[in-house]
Amino acid sequence: NCQHTSRLLYPTPKPCYCKRIHSDAKLEDPFTLAQKDLNNLYDDIKKELFVSKSELKSICDYYFDGKGKAFRPMIVVLMARACNSHSNLLPGQRSIAMISEMIHTASLVHDDVIDGSDKRRGKTTINEVWGERKAILAGDFILSAASVALARIGNNTVVSVLSQVTEDLVRGEFMQLGSKENEEERFKHYLDKTFKKTASLIANSCKAVSILVNSDPEVHEIAFQYGRNVGIAFQLVDDVLDFTACASQLGKPSATDLKLGLATGPVLFACQQFPELQGMIMRRFSSSGDVARAWQYVQESEGVDQTNYLAQHYCQEAIRQISLLRPSLERDALISLTQMVLTRDK
Amino acid sequence: NCQHTSRLLYPTPKPCYCKRIHSDAKLEDPFTLAQKDLNNLYDDIKKELFVSKSELKSICDYYFDGKGKAFRPMIVVLMARACNSHSNLLPGQRSIAMISEMIHTASLVHDDVIDGSDKRRGKTTINEVWGERKAILAGDFILSAASVALARIGNNTVVSVLSQVTEDLVRGEFMQLGSKENEEERFKHYLDKTFKKTASLIANSCKAVSILVNSDPEVHEIAFQYGRNVGIAFQLVDDVLDFTACASQLGKPSATDLKLGLATGPVLFACQQFPELQGMIMRRFSSSGDVARAWQYVQESEGVDQTNYLAQHYCQEAIRQISLLRPSLERDALISLTQMVLTRDK
Repeated sequence: NCQHTSRLLYPTPKPCYCKRIHSDAKLEDPFTLAQKDLNNLYDDIKKELFVSKSELKSICDYYFDGKGKAFRPMIVVLMARACNSHSNLLPGQRSIAMISEMIHTASLVHDDVIDGSDKRRGKTTINEVWGERKAILAGDFILSAASVALARIGNNTVVSVLSQVTEDLVRGEFMQLGSKENEEERFKHYLDKTFKKTASLIANSCKAVSILVNSDPEVHEIAFQYGRNVGIAFQLVDDVLDFTACASQLGKPSATDLKLGLATGPVLFACQQFPELQGMIMRRFSSSGDVARAWQYVQESEGVDQTNYLAQHYCQEAIRQISLLRPSLERDALISLTQMVLTRDK
Repeated sequence: NCQHTSRLLYPTPKPCYCKRIHSDAKLEDPFTLAQKDLNNLYDDIKKELFVSKSELKSICDYYFDGKGKAFRPMIVVLMARACNSHSNLLPGQRSIAMISEMIHTASLVHDDVIDGSDKRRGKTTINEVWGERKAILAGDFILSAASVALARIGNNTVVSVLSQVTEDLVRGEFMQLGSKENEEERFKHYLDKTFKKTASLIANSCKAVSILVNSDPEVHEIAFQYGRNVGIAFQLVDDVLDFTACASQLGKPSATDLKLGLATGPVLFACQQFPELQGMIMRRFSSSGDVARAWQYVQESEGVDQTNYLAQHYCQEAIRQISLLRPSLERDALISLTQMVLTRDK
């Protein structure tokens, strides 16, 4: 029997790990509900990236193959409909769904160059197939096409809100390259990085669709906070999966983060139990055997559970926020979605 | 005695190479005239790139050291004043001057990663000092800060016009990675690449400042065409300098383009005289001795003169365009500037 409380229990000695979110909302499947708005999304993105038959076109089409989860666009269209009381999805809101996926993909392309990754979603990465130079350019190109599409929406506030995202993405990636000596600072640094690298895009896209249809700043803030909390939870779970899912599920090798020198949630929690990790974290797991040893410590610690629990906390806050909106199927789907974020295994 | 004609003489057997532009305009020094508007430009850029004392800050500050020529901002503020009949420089126009320099610098940072360059303006490149990953991120960061500044101007058309630039920059860089079999196509490809990689930024920045103060689409087109023509001329001269200036003047080694496999104006013209170059161009000067041999052919050909002449043609067209604006000191300075573009030796 789990006894959820809404108070923040991190770091916590005995959290409840049941992974269930308690809410009165009717369970709505977010994917089904969002589907009608997401038809042809990838085709529309390819139209934005219009280039005549060329290598650039092949590269750009490579990730927009329609096989992605379209997780960001899904949240965006659901949030749009949850905020629209008197209208259908606006064309500008649909554009934001596209743009969010474009910005996300552009940042993946550059991240893979920066990390020298060779696999992504089970596919060989662009840098591996076409080389680094073309991967850098393709990322730049997708981002610039996103800016062009953004400008076309014709709303200055929306342009400002989404321009902030690319800045956050870079700041986040930069933060990831540095480490903090002090343990407390390190956790703050990690969560701040997580907001910038993952949650900012979701939070600001949610805010942008709400701005397009609603003049109430409180609604914008609810949309932003829902996106922020779900985004952070999403990344925390991602960081857990790097320790728990097998390579074939993830479409990339596991323990990638450790191999990249990154100390994510599970390691940071494990370090509270096993101070031996401190030195390894500081040298970014660069000594021989560090990765295997750190992996072992994490398995023996409660780091994975504690990170999951922290993700759950962020989802509860997301639910609290979104519940402030008027009732709608889409609002309920956004609530169900938090559950999916927590329980996904790839 | 030179007999300039305005007809396009390219490719031409016996062009006039005097490099002088004939115009009735009073000679105004563009740098002096633009100076008051450019005071503190680099400090203001650094404020846009605000980051707390961090490595990212050092990297961003590295190129905005105030030692650049600020060629693009200068054209932008002069064009702004040439278009403003009843007002001073608007804050948004000053922002565009800054943004043009920021976009330019961001693209240099990525170009240097892509080309693996180790020198730029006599300084060690960012990729050489901080490594490729951080250079990629710094380029992304400067570009995103430019987008944030652009959004703040609050004019949708201006946002659209300048978003197009980053797209052109990437397309141009991509074109540069490919080559064309056919000679005529190759020249067209080269000039198209030159527009996208160099002139689009200048042309669209000029258009943007004119949009901010003027509702007449003819004026926007004049501003754009002046920028387009000066921009192409600027790059043609740059391509010539790679063959004629010594390394210490340029702040980077000469014959860089050949070493990068690029066939620019002088080589393309030389190929009309020496078809032996055809094979080397196609294999991007990759065989041993190609660079030295191609260099020699260019020196023996009229390729350099013909490229200079072509640049002159573009400057004449720039003058014809800008002369359609009402008379002003700034208009005359923009005319003088074409002369400086042609005669610069670094």
